[in-house]
Amino acid sequence: MNQLWIKNGLFVTMDDTMPTVRGHMVITDDRITYIGAEVPNQLSPHTVIMDGSRLAFMPGLVNTHGHAAMTLLRGYSDDQKLQVWLEEKMWPMEAKYVDADTRAGSALAVVEMLKTGTTAFVDMYDRMDQVAQTVEQGGLRGILTRGVIGLCPEDVQKAKLEDALSFARDWNGKANGRITTLLSPHAPYTCPPAYIEKFVQAAHDMNLPLHTHMSETLAEVEQNVKEYGSRPVEHLDKLGFFSRPALVAHAVHLNDEEIALLAERGVAVSHNPVSNLKLASGIARVPDLLKAGVTVSLGTDSAASNNNLDLFEEIRLSALLHKGISGDPTAVPAWEALKLGTTYGAHAVWQGDSIGKLKEGYKADFVAINLDQPHFYPLTDIVSHLVYSGSGRDVLHVWVDGRQVVQDGVCTQLDEEKIKYEAAASFDRLLHG
Amino acid sequence: MNQLWIKNGLFVTMDDTMPTVRGHMVITDDRITYIGAEVPNQLSPHTVIMDGSRLAFMPGLVNTHGHAAMTLLRGYSDDQKLQVWLEEKMWPMEAKYVDADTRAGSALAVVEMLKTGTTAFVDMYDRMDQVAQTVEQGGLRGILTRGVIGLCPEDVQKAKLEDALSFARDWNGKANGRITTLLSPHAPYTCPPAYIEKFVQAAHDMNLPLHTHMSETLAEVEQNVKEYGSRPVEHLDKLGFFSRPALVAHAVHLNDEEIALLAERGVAVSHNPVSNLKLASGIARVPDLLKAGVTVSLGTDSAASNNNLDLFEEIRLSALLHKGISGDPTAVPAWEALKLGTTYGAHAVWQGDSIGKLKEGYKADFVAINLDQPHFYPLTDIVSHLVYSGSGRDVLHVWVDGRQVVQDGVCTQLDEEKIKYEAAASFDRLLHG
Repeated sequence: MNQLWIKNGLFVTMDDTMPTVRGHMVITDDRITYIGAEVPNQLSPHTVIMDGSRLAFMPGLVNTHGHAAMTLLRGYSDDQKLQVWLEEKMWPMEAKYVDADTRAGSALAVVEMLKTGTTAFVDMYDRMDQVAQTVEQGGLRGILTRGVIGLCPEDVQKAKLEDALSFARDWNGKANGRITTLLSPHAPYTCPPAYIEKFVQAAHDMNLPLHTHMSETLAEVEQNVKEYGSRPVEHLDKLGFFSRPALVAHAVHLNDEEIALLAERGVAVSHNPVSNLKLASGIARVPDLLKAGVTVSLGTDSAASNNNLDLFEEIRLSALLHKGISGDPTAVPAWEALKLGTTYGAHAVWQGDSIGKLKEGYKADFVAINLDQPHFYPLTDIVSHLVYSGSGRDVLHVWVDGRQVVQDGVCTQLDEEKIKYEAAASFDRLLHG
Repeated sequence: MNQLWIKNGLFVTMDDTMPTVRGHMVITDDRITYIGAEVPNQLSPHTVIMDGSRLAFMPGLVNTHGHAAMTLLRGYSDDQKLQVWLEEKMWPMEAKYVDADTRAGSALAVVEMLKTGTTAFVDMYDRMDQVAQTVEQGGLRGILTRGVIGLCPEDVQKAKLEDALSFARDWNGKANGRITTLLSPHAPYTCPPAYIEKFVQAAHDMNLPLHTHMSETLAEVEQNVKEYGSRPVEHLDKLGFFSRPALVAHAVHLNDEEIALLAERGVAVSHNPVSNLKLASGIARVPDLLKAGVTVSLGTDSAASNNNLDLFEEIRLSALLHKGISGDPTAVPAWEALKLGTTYGAHAVWQGDSIGKLKEGYKADFVAINLDQPHFYPLTDIVSHLVYSGSGRDVLHVWVDGRQVVQDGVCTQLDEEKIKYEAAASFDRLLHG
C-alpha cells in the first residue's frame, strides 16, 4: 500500500458542500481516502508526508475536445479564412503524416497538457494506436476515438469504420482503466447520414458513447438545412445519435429548440472558446446551455487553431467572454468556470463519479499550484485567483491515479527533451519532405 | 562604457522592414547600437557576451492604462454588477488607503509587470509619489499621473488639481528620464466640464499630455448625452481636451463619427479587453479604430478588474476576440496584435521614437523569452507563438535603459519577498482595520 499525506495545504475541492478546505488530504494507492481540516488518523506507518503550505491543490483538468497530433502544426497557419486554413494548409500537411508524426505530435501535446494541469483529455484523430501508447506511457487519462471522415468510396468508408471499431475494442479499459474509447463520425457535414447510422449501431452493439463535431460554423448549419432539411441537432437526433451517451464539440450555432433538445437527451457539450474565436466561428451560448441544464465542458481543440493546450485559458475565457457579450457581469462566475474545466468535464466523459473533485473515494487525479507568485497576492480568494489570474504555468506537480506524473514542472514518465527534438524533426520533414 | 553582445539570438524587432532577425544585438550603455544577421564589429574589448540561442528577444511591453495600487484588491470582488463592485467594494476599501498601502500595491504591481515583460506602464491614481518612488527603484519606465475625480466642493477640487500639477511638475523627467507625467481628469462623468477645462489649460501651460477614461460603458455615454447634449468624444473635443496630445482609456462605445474625430485629432486609445469583458462593459471596435488610423495600444486596467497584469493576455485577446466577433479570421493578425503591445503602445505614450522596437538608436528596453518549452515547439513562426501560445511566464530576462532588471525571472532591483509580505499585510489591514 502506498500512502501520501499532504499537510497544511489549501484544497479547492470543486465540491459544493465545502468548496475550499485548509487542511489535509490523504492518498492511498490510487484514491483520495481523506480530505478535511483535521489531522488525519489511522495512517500507515510508512506514509509519505508532503508539506502542502504555499501550494493550492485542485482536481486535474479535463480537456474534452482535441486532436493531439496536430500540435505539430502549431503556428503553421494563422489569421486565414477557414477554407484556406483547412484545404491549403492543414489537409496537405496531414496527408503526409506517418505513424512517427502522429506519435511525435501526440507526445508533445501530452507533455504540454500534463505540465499545465490536464490529467484527462478527449482525442479524436487517426493512427490512434500511437496516441493510446503515448497516453499509456505518459500516465494520464485518455478518452480516445478514431475520428472518421466519410466523404469517400464505400470500401474506404468500410475500412475506416472497421479501424475505428477495432481501435475502440482493443483499447477500451487499457492502461489500468485510464484509457476509455468512443466512436466518432467526424461531423454531420463530413459523414453521409447512412454512415453516421452505422456508428450509432456500433455504439449500441459495443456499449460505447459517441463524439462528433457539431454546429461549429454558421455555414455548416445552413448547409445541413439545405442538404437534409433540418439543423444539425435535429438531424443527429433523427439518426439516433443521441440515443447513445453523446459529447458534441463546439455547438456554437444553436437555437432555443436545439438547446432544449440537447438538455432533454442529456448530450454534453465541449465548449472551445479559443478555437471558435481564432477561426472566427463565433461564440457558443454557454450561459443559455447551462441554464437549460446541459453539461458544458471545455476543450482546447488542436494547437493548430488555439495555439496552446493550456486549459486554464479556456476556463478564464469562459468566465470573461460571456460577461462581455451579454452585458451581465454575473454571467459564468469563477466557481462555475472552474467547474467547466473539472467536474463538468468529468461528467462530459462519463467519469463524474470518479474524477473532477477532491473527495473521499474519488481517484487521486489532482494538481498542485505554486501560490508563491506575485499574481496570487494577496491571497484573497483562491477560486478567483485560479480563474482570473492563474495559468497552467503555475502547476508545479501533477498526480494521476495517485502516481506523480509531473514533479517540479517536469514530466516523470516521459523524456521531454527527446519529445521536443522529435516534434521539431517531424515538422521539418512534413514541411520539406 | 558598458557593452553587451547577444550572440545567436532570435530577435523579433517589431520593425516592418525586418520583422525577425536571427543573429546579433549589441547594447552600448542605454541604447541598441547594432542589430543584424552579421557578427558585429568595432566592439569594446570589455564587451560582455551573452549566448542568445534558445531565447527570443523582443521589445519590452507597454501597458497604457492601469491603477497599480489597486493590485491589493485583486480578487476582492468579482462577478458583480459594476455599481456594487465600485460603490460597495472598491471605494470603501480605497478610502482606507494610506501611503503604505499605495506603496505596497504599486510595488506588487511593478514586480508582476516586470516579471511578465512590461517595461513601461501608464499609471493613474493618487498618492502618486509612492508610485513614482517604486518606479524609480524598480528600474522600469512610468508614465504617471494623478487621476482626479471632481465630484467634490470647489476647495477640494482646487487642492486635488494642485496636487496633480505639483506631482506632474516634480516628477517629469526624473529617474534618468524613465518617468514622464501626464494630467488626468478621471472621466467626463466624474469631472464637471469647467474642471476638465482647468486641466486642459494646465496641460497647455506645462506642455503635458492628457489622459482620461472615456466611453467605457453604454450607460456613461447615455448619461453624457443627457447631461451635456453630446457624446463623450464631442464633449471632450469641445472642452479642448484633444487640443493637447491625449490618450483615452477604454473607448468601448464609439460611433463612426467619433472614430473619425479621434483619428483626426491624433488621439491614442488604450484598449483594455480583459477588464472590459470582466466588467461586462463590452468590446471596443478595434479593427475599425485601426482602419481609421487611430493609434490603439493595450492596457490591463487594474488587477481588481482583470485580475492580472500580464499584457501578453491582452495581446492574445486582441488577436482572438475581434475575429470571433466580426466573423473575419483575418481581423487583427498576430503581427498587428504584437504591435498593439509594443510599438503602438510606445507611440501612445509619445515615446515611439525611442522605445517599442529593437532598432539601432532605440533605448535598450527589451525582454528575453525562454523558447525551450513545449508550447513553443515546433518553432514554426515566432510571432504567432508569442501571440497565440506565449505568456508573461515565458519571460526570463528584462532590460530597461540597458540595465538588466529581471534575471532568470527574478527582479534585480526589488526585494520580491518583502513586497509580497507587505502586500499581504496591507490587504489584511484594509480588510480588518
